[in-house]
Amino acid sequence: MFNKLCIIGAGLIGGSVARAARANNLCTEISAYGREQDSENLARAKALNVVDSYSFDLAEAVSNADCIIIATPVGAMPEIFQRLKSCWSNDALYMDAGSTKGNVVTALQEVFDAVPSNFIPAHPIAGAENSGVEAALENLFQNRRLILTPTEQANPHFLQLAQNFWQAMGSDVSLMAVEQHDAVLAATSHLPHILAFSLVNLLGKKDETVDIFKYAAGGFKDFTRIASSDPTMWLDICMANKKQIVPLINELCVELQDLNKMLEKNDTEQLYDTFTYARNARQRFLDQYQKL
Amino acid sequence: MFNKLCIIGAGLIGGSVARAARANNLCTEISAYGREQDSENLARAKALNVVDSYSFDLAEAVSNADCIIIATPVGAMPEIFQRLKSCWSNDALYMDAGSTKGNVVTALQEVFDAVPSNFIPAHPIAGAENSGVEAALENLFQNRRLILTPTEQANPHFLQLAQNFWQAMGSDVSLMAVEQHDAVLAATSHLPHILAFSLVNLLGKKDETVDIFKYAAGGFKDFTRIASSDPTMWLDICMANKKQIVPLINELCVELQDLNKMLEKNDTEQLYDTFTYARNARQRFLDQYQKL
Repeated sequence: MFNKLCIIGAGLIGGSVARAARANNLCTEISAYGREQDSENLARAKALNVVDSYSFDLAEAVSNADCIIIATPVGAMPEIFQRLKSCWSNDALYMDAGSTKGNVVTALQEVFDAVPSNFIPAHPIAGAENSGVEAALENLFQNRRLILTPTEQANPHFLQLAQNFWQAMGSDVSLMAVEQHDAVLAATSHLPHILAFSLVNLLGKKDETVDIFKYAAGGFKDFTRIASSDPTMWLDICMANKKQIVPLINELCVELQDLNKMLEKNDTEQLYDTFTYARNARQRFLDQYQKL
Repeated sequence: MFNKLCIIGAGLIGGSVARAARANNLCTEISAYGREQDSENLARAKALNVVDSYSFDLAEAVSNADCIIIATPVGAMPEIFQRLKSCWSNDALYMDAGSTKGNVVTALQEVFDAVPSNFIPAHPIAGAENSGVEAALENLFQNRRLILTPTEQANPHFLQLAQNFWQAMGSDVSLMAVEQHDAVLAATSHLPHILAFSLVNLLGKKDETVDIFKYAAGGFKDFTRIASSDPTMWLDICMANKKQIVPLINELCVELQDLNKMLEKNDTEQLYDTFTYARNARQRFLDQYQKL
């Protein structure tokens, strides 16, 4: 499919793209770009044969690449776009792999005036507990959703290439408008993370004065797993998508206050209906999740 | 330890107490009481040798028992206490296994004027995905916390017996005041459940008009697992402990609104600190959880 794939940022996602592309024969050569402070991780990527070469010089890393994936934290992308501008190729496919899309499109517009027709924003909905290239997996995208949010300017040729690329790595590819992507992810991913952070924050403060964590059980462990997520990454995501997140937090507080009113009024019927609706809704999610 | 153990309510918890007591030679005979509409489950309990006998007559089931465990839903306990009164034995140890304790103590006071000195309220912090006697496990309480909330009237002999009984089934037994138990459990169990129900409720309504669950991933699955809990059981628990739960929901809404303000003011430093504090607090929980 490609001659040279270049990974900008060889972490869990970038490294997994490299491994999956190689495992599925989607390219003949893989290069990586990273900062000098990431030299250890890049050397490890080469030693593990995840990439064939790496460079601290962006122009050198992307030279002759016909597919470039930007898999850095969301907050680092504007600067990467700025620096890619001088060595841009109109013949290569560019994609990012960020968890938010509105900010990617805005940053591209700021640097290039319009989103380049060969840039297809992508979001693989996949992750793992660990980070860094050592955690990279060739099957990370297998049976996982992947959302592409092509803008109006997108060249159909590059859009098709992008779809083929992710499908070949096992992803279930959907196309979506940028706004819709950010709304959906705010609801299903960003809001749950914020809830988990807020709950553990509240309880952590209580635990400092009275032992409470000692008596928490398995349900609490599962519920709070996402509160162990990387704070830097989540700061980036929350800032990038706050336009969607802030009103959702307000909606949830209204929901919680409604529940409080039911409790105070002993409205057992409505409470029961609320819990039952939630259980059924989660079953609807599970049915779709397991079908994938 | 006991001659005859009687299980009132042979579900997951009651059945597991029976299995664990038998496996650890803590009694020579086990009876069960249940309602006629539970006859199938009771017959299954006998067929599986979880209990030796069962009766739809409470007085018959508890006759000559020296240990009685009330493992019905929390909401059914007041009526059970009322009906136990006429066949009460001062020589037997009585315990419940409910998730809330204030309501148990209040119900006992209403029926008996004061909590009987041979009643030791107990809460095994253990559970499983499934319910009913088929799901009962002899090691359900192994390496799990168990909280006893003896009142001032508790007879030390029966308190010691209660401790020995649960410890012999592998539980890590703690003593706690009734109020403290309910505050701790509201924070670590009831609030998370309400959050999960509220979140899935909010998102379920959105999912009805725009596909969002389709794009939810593994983190969402874990986070919402407790939203699949039994609505009847959780209605009972929430109503029984609403005095503790309502203010906690308000505290969490304040926490969420604080986070919203940080997002709106671009206060990245405080957001980062909040996320980091949460991650560290969860690690503190995990360290204790894994030590058990």
